[in-house]
Amino acid sequence: MGGSHIAIPTILKVGKGTLENLGTYIKSSGMSNAVIYFGNDLIDMFGETVMKSLKDAGVNVLGYREMDSIKIEELIGIAFDIDSKAQVVVGIGGGKVIDGAKYAAYLRKLPFISVPTSASSDGFSSASASLLVNGRRTSVPARMAYGIVADTQIIKSAPEKFIYSGIGDMVSKITALYDWVYEDQKGYTELNDFAMMIAKKAVNSFVRTPFESIKDDLFLKELLDSLAMSGIANEIAGGSAPTSGSEHLISHALDKMLPVPQLHGVQVGIATYLMSVVQNHRYKRVNTIFTDTGFWNFVEKLDLDIKDYEKAIDMAPSIKPHRHTYLHEKEYRDLAKKVLYEDERLKKVFHI
Amino acid sequence: MGGSHIAIPTILKVGKGTLENLGTYIKSSGMSNAVIYFGNDLIDMFGETVMKSLKDAGVNVLGYREMDSIKIEELIGIAFDIDSKAQVVVGIGGGKVIDGAKYAAYLRKLPFISVPTSASSDGFSSASASLLVNGRRTSVPARMAYGIVADTQIIKSAPEKFIYSGIGDMVSKITALYDWVYEDQKGYTELNDFAMMIAKKAVNSFVRTPFESIKDDLFLKELLDSLAMSGIANEIAGGSAPTSGSEHLISHALDKMLPVPQLHGVQVGIATYLMSVVQNHRYKRVNTIFTDTGFWNFVEKLDLDIKDYEKAIDMAPSIKPHRHTYLHEKEYRDLAKKVLYEDERLKKVFHI
Amino acid sequence: MGGSHIAIPTILKVGKGTLENLGTYIKSSGMSNAVIYFGNDLIDMFGETVMKSLKDAGVNVLGYREMDSIKIEELIGIAFDIDSKAQVVVGIGGGKVIDGAKYAAYLRKLPFISVPTSASSDGFSSASASLLVNGRRTSVPARMAYGIVADTQIIKSAPEKFIYSGIGDMVSKITALYDWVYEDQKGYTELNDFAMMIAKKAVNSFVRTPFESIKDDLFLKELLDSLAMSGIANEIAGGSAPTSGSEHLISHALDKMLPVPQLHGVQVGIATYLMSVVQNHRYKRVNTIFTDTGFWNFVEKLDLDIKDYEKAIDMAPSIKPHRHTYLHEKEYRDLAKKVLYEDERLKKVFHI
Amino acid sequence: MGGSHIAIPTILKVGKGTLENLGTYIKSSGMSNAVIYFGNDLIDMFGETVMKSLKDAGVNVLGYREMDSIKIEELIGIAFDIDSKAQVVVGIGGGKVIDGAKYAAYLRKLPFISVPTSASSDGFSSASASLLVNGRRTSVPARMAYGIVADTQIIKSAPEKFIYSGIGDMVSKITALYDWVYEDQKGYTELNDFAMMIAKKAVNSFVRTPFESIKDDLFLKELLDSLAMSGIANEIAGGSAPTSGSEHLISHALDKMLPVPQLHGVQVGIATYLMSVVQNHRYKRVNTIFTDTGFWNFVEKLDLDIKDYEKAIDMAPSIKPHRHTYLHEKEYRDLAKKVLYEDERLKKVFHI
Repeated sequence: MGGSHIAIPTILKVGKGTLENLGTYIKSSGMSNAVIYFGNDLIDMFGETVMKSLKDAGVNVLGYREMDSIKIEELIGIAFDIDSKAQVVVGIGGGKVIDGAKYAAYLRKLPFISVPTSASSDGFSSASASLLVNGRRTSVPARMAYGIVADTQIIKSAPEKFIYSGIGDMVSKITALYDWVYEDQKGYTELNDFAMMIAKKAVNSFVRTPFESIKDDLFLKELLDSLAMSGIANEIAGGSAPTSGSEHLISHALDKMLPVPQLHGVQVGIATYLMSVVQNHRYKRVNTIFTDTGFWNFVEKLDLDIKDYEKAIDMAPSIKPHRHTYLHEKEYRDLAKKVLYEDERLKKVFHI
Repeated sequence: MGGSHIAIPTILKVGKGTLENLGTYIKSSGMSNAVIYFGNDLIDMFGETVMKSLKDAGVNVLGYREMDSIKIEELIGIAFDIDSKAQVVVGIGGGKVIDGAKYAAYLRKLPFISVPTSASSDGFSSASASLLVNGRRTSVPARMAYGIVADTQIIKSAPEKFIYSGIGDMVSKITALYDWVYEDQKGYTELNDFAMMIAKKAVNSFVRTPFESIKDDLFLKELLDSLAMSGIANEIAGGSAPTSGSEHLISHALDKMLPVPQLHGVQVGIATYLMSVVQNHRYKRVNTIFTDTGFWNFVEKLDLDIKDYEKAIDMAPSIKPHRHTYLHEKEYRDLAKKVLYEDERLKKVFHI
Repeated sequence: MGGSHIAIPTILKVGKGTLENLGTYIKSSGMSNAVIYFGNDLIDMFGETVMKSLKDAGVNVLGYREMDSIKIEELIGIAFDIDSKAQVVVGIGGGKVIDGAKYAAYLRKLPFISVPTSASSDGFSSASASLLVNGRRTSVPARMAYGIVADTQIIKSAPEKFIYSGIGDMVSKITALYDWVYEDQKGYTELNDFAMMIAKKAVNSFVRTPFESIKDDLFLKELLDSLAMSGIANEIAGGSAPTSGSEHLISHALDKMLPVPQLHGVQVGIATYLMSVVQNHRYKRVNTIFTDTGFWNFVEKLDLDIKDYEKAIDMAPSIKPHRHTYLHEKEYRDLAKKVLYEDERLKKVFHI
Repeated sequence: MGGSHIAIPTILKVGKGTLENLGTYIKSSGMSNAVIYFGNDLIDMFGETVMKSLKDAGVNVLGYREMDSIKIEELIGIAFDIDSKAQVVVGIGGGKVIDGAKYAAYLRKLPFISVPTSASSDGFSSASASLLVNGRRTSVPARMAYGIVADTQIIKSAPEKFIYSGIGDMVSKITALYDWVYEDQKGYTELNDFAMMIAKKAVNSFVRTPFESIKDDLFLKELLDSLAMSGIANEIAGGSAPTSGSEHLISHALDKMLPVPQLHGVQVGIATYLMSVVQNHRYKRVNTIFTDTGFWNFVEKLDLDIKDYEKAIDMAPSIKPHRHTYLHEKEYRDLAKKVLYEDERLKKVFHI
C-alpha cells in the first residue's frame, strides 16, 4: 500500500581511489570470502592493488582468474566451479567480464560487485547481461549488482575512446526517454514515473556539468554516477526502456551488420543526435555537449559509412518488434534518413 | 542477496496541468474510492477541478473537507472517521494539510497521494510528518507517499515567497550532504550510498538548470522534481540526514526562538550559504544560484536580525544532539559566527 | 515475478523458560536499547527475571512501566515519550498491554517484541491492535511483531480460564476458514491460498495433538505455536478473515451487549461449536476437543444466558457489514437459532 | 523494522480436480500467455485436460512439449527458445520435468507454476532444482514457484510407491529438524524460527492425520499440503536445512553408490526411522506412521542390502561437509551402525 519496492545497490562508490578500498567495502557488508574475475590482461594491471585491498580488510580470495568468455555454456561451468564457501563474486574490467561475472553470480545466487575499468556504457550497473546464447548475442536477465565500485583514477587512464563511448551512451537517455514517453502516449506501454525521473536527473545532471577537459575528475565522476543511475533506472522499470530507445536500435542494427562495429556508445551517440533532430527535442543540447567534449572531433576521424546508418535505420524496428519508438513508424524512418543526409552536423561526421 | 529494497512512489507526476489528471492517475492504480483533504480556502480554488477529474475517471469521493490541523489528537479523530470503504487518501495544499492527510492515511494504512500547491519545501515527498504532539512540533514517522502529483501551473500561481523557500530548501542539500559525509568520516553514522547519489543528482540537476525566470515551466519542474527526489532520498536513507544538516539546525533553532519565523526554506537558504562558507565547499555555486534567482534580493527585504542567527548557531547542536554536523564542533560554531558578521554577502542580507 | 512477499516475525520462541533468554534474543538481533511495558502487577511477577535477562545480555533498559491503557490518545502520549535512543519496544502481559505496546511501537516505527503471559487469544501475534478510539473498541492497523516470545512455564501458571479461552480461539479457525471459503465462493472476497494453508496447518496440528492434561508442556506449546501462526496468517491475508468468521461476530456482538462479557476465546469457542453444526462441518472434531480438554465442563459452570446468544446471532452481520459469512444470510441465522435451542450439547451449556 | 520478508507462492491449490482449473488460476493472476512442459508420456494423459482448461480461461499456449532433460546445457537452449511473449512457465509431471521447467523459468525470470503428478517428494515446492551439471547431479538455486497446483485425483492414480516415497520424505522432517536444532546448539548455524515452525506444523499436522487408506482424499491432501509447506520452509530459511538432515545424507550417499537407487523418499524414510532412534527422538511416532500407512510392508519387499546403508552412514558427513548433523560425529555414526544391525524393526526391513 505504501508504493512499490525496488532493489538497489547497497554499495555504490564512484570516485578517486575507490579500488584501493574494495576490500573494506566488501568486509563492511559482512562478507569474508570472495572470488574475482578480471578482464584480459587486467591481473597485471590491478591484481596487486585488489589483492592487497582484500587482504588488508580480512577478505579471503578463494579464487581469481582472467575471463573473457560471454558464452553462456562456459559461464555455467565457471559458475558451478565457484567454491561453495564463496559469499560474493567480483568482476573487474570492461563490459565482457562484468557481464560474465554478473551472470555467474546470478547462477549461484551470490551477490555481485561490479568494478568497471572504463566508462564505455551503463552495462556495469544494469541487471541484465549480454551473452552469447547459441552463438547469438542475447540480453539475458540477471540481478542488480549488490555493489558498484568505479575508480575515476583508473577510468581516466583508459583510452579516450571509452570515455567518448560513455558520453554517447549517457546522452542517449535524452532520446530514449522521449521514445518511452511516445510509446506510452500511443498506448504501447506504461511509463514508470520513478524510473523516468531517475534517468532524467542522471542525464540532466551530466549534460549540465561544467568541465574543462573530459578527464576532469568531476566530469568523470558525473559521467559514472549518471551511468550507474541509468542502470538502476532500468531495474526500477523492469526493462531497458528508460535507457534504450530508437538510437540504441540503430546501434544494435549496426552491430548485426558490420564485421567490426564501433564501440557501443560511439554508435549510440551519433544515432542520438540524429534521433534528437527527428524528435525535434533538445538537439541543440546534444550538439553542444558533443561539440564541447570533442565527441564530434573524435567520430569524424572514424571513417564511418553513411550507408550503414541508412540501412540500420530501416532495420531498427525489427530489432525490437514489440516496442514502439519513433523509428517504428515509417514516417519517422523516412525523416531520419532525410536528416541523415541533409543535416550539416552529420554531413561532417560522414564526410559528405 | 541482490542488494537492498526500498519503497518508492508509484505515481510521480510533475508538470503542467497534472491536477486535471488526478482522477486518471488514481483509477489507473486500481483504486475507486477516495477521501480528500484540502488546505484552508483551497476547495474554492481547486475543488471543482479535482471533483471533475475524479468523477470523469470513475473515482468516488467518499468525503472531502478542508483541514488545517496538525494536532495529532485531532488527526486520530479524523483518521478513524474515514469511511471503511476508502482506498486512498488525497492531501491537496501546503505543508500542513499534506502532513495531516499523510498521517491520517498512515493511521489507517491507506495509500496517500500528495498534491502540493506550493514548492516551499520537500515535505510533500517525505515519509515523515511534522505534527503537534503535546503542543510541541515533532517529526513523527509515517510512510512514503503512494503518489506525488505536482502541477507546475498551480505552483507558479502561488506567491513568489514559496518558490524562494523551495529554492532555499533545495540548495540546502549541498551543505546537508557535506555534513553527512563529515559525520560518516568521523564515525558517527554510516552513509547510504544510493540515497547520497539520489540527493546529489537532485541538487546538481537543479542548480545547473538554465532559466530566465524562476517562473519558467522548466525551472519549476526541475525544482519540484528535485524536491521530490530529496524526500525519496530520505526514505532510502531511513532518516533525514541526506537532506537536512547544520543549515536545517539553524532554521529549527530560529523556529524555536522567534514568535513569527520566516518560511522554512528561506531561513534554510541563508543558513546554507553561511555553512557552505564554513565548510569551504561550493559556496560560489550557492551564491550564484541565490543571485541569479533573486533569492538574495528577496531576503534582503525581510528585515532579518543577525543576532537571531548568532543565537541559532549556538543552539544548533542541541536541536539534534545525536547527530554530528560541522556545527556540533565548537571550532566550527565559532567560525560560523565569524563568517556571519564578516562575509560581505551576509552583511548585505542583514544590513550591517 | 517470484510470488508475493510477506513480513514474518524474526524472533519466534515458544517454549519452557524462554523469558529468561529474552535479553539474548534481543541482543542477537543487534538491538541494545529497549523500553518495556508490563501489564498490571506484572513487574512484581516478572520484573526481576526480565531485567536480569536483559542486563546479562548487554541490553540497556531505557525505561519500563506498567500500562493498562488502550486509549489511543494516551498511547500517543506514551509513544512520543519513548526515548529517542530506543531501538525496540517490549510488551509483556495480556491482551491489553500487548495491544498498547504494539501500537506505541507502530507510532514510533520501532520493532515490537510480544511477550504474552497467557494463551487467551491470538492477539499477541496479530498485526492489528484493539484500542479505544473515541470510547469505542476499534481494531486499528499496526505491524507484525518483530518478535514473539512465549514462555510455556509462565502460561501454565496463569489461571486455567485463559487456557480455555486460547483453546476456544484456536479451534475457531475451523469455522472461520469455512466462512472464508464460503465468502470466496459467493464472490465477496478472494482467498489467500497461503494464509489459508498456514491457518489450516495451525489448527489441524493443534486439534490432533495428543495430551493428558491441558497443562502438558507439549499441549501448551502446540496451542501457542498455533495461535502465533494464526496471527501470521492474518498478516499474510492482509486482514482477519483467516482467523475470524461468524463465530467471532457472535462474540463481538456479546461484547457490545453485555456489561461484563466472558473471555474472548470462551465466547468464541461456544460460538464455534454452534457454527460448526450450522455449517455442517467438522462439528464432531470440535465437540471432541472441547470434551477432552474440559472446555465444556468449564463453560457449563459460567451461568450463561441463551437469550444473549440468540440476540448476538441476530446482531452478528451488522458487526462487519462488508463481510459475507454464513450468518450474513437469514437462512443460516434462523438455523443457528434453532441449533442454539435444540442441540443437545448446547442445551447442557445453557442449562435448558 | 517490522521483521523479515519472504517470498511465498501466490497460487497454492491442493485438492480434487484442481488441474481442471489450472487455466482459471493462471488467468486470475493476470497472465495470458503460457508455455507448458510435460513429463514423458504425460501429454497423452493430461494434455487434453490442460489445454481445455487454459483455452476456456482465455490463456494462450505459446508452446508445449514433453521434456525429460535435467542437463543444464539443454535447459539453457530450451529456456532461451521460449517465446518472448511468454508470461508464465508451467511444469507438469514428476521431479525431473518440474526441476527442468522451474530452471528454464528462472533463466528467463518468468513465474513458474508447479503441477506435480505424484507426491514423491517436496521438490515441487522447493526453490532449488536438482540438475546435471558437468554430469554430476547438483542442487542449483532457482526461485520459489509462483504457483503450486496439485490435483489429489491425479496423485491418487499414480503408483503407490510414489505415495510411500512422499510419506518417507514428509516424515523425515522430524529428524531433519532435530538435526537443525542440534547444529544450532553446537554453534554451526543459526536456526530460522519461522521456517522451523512452518516445517514443524507441516509434519505434525501430517503425522497426526487420521486415515483409513493412504488413498483417502484427506490423507493425500494433508500429505501434499505438508510437502508444499516444507518447500516453503526451505525458502524461508534460505537453504534446505529445515527439511533435510542426516537422513537425507544417507539417501544422497546411496544415490552415489548404487547403480539403481530406490525412490528418494523411500530411502529417506528408512533413514529417518534409523536416525530417530539414534537421536532418541519421536521414533515411536515414526514407527507408528510407517506401520499404519504400510510403509514398512512396502519396503520389506524391496530386497534392500543392509551393507549399502552401513556404507552410506560412513559416507554421510562427506556429502555436506559444511553442515553438522548427528552423523557428522563419529560417536553417532557408530551408534547408527549399531542400531542398523540391532533394531528389531530394521532387522525386518533388511531381512536379517
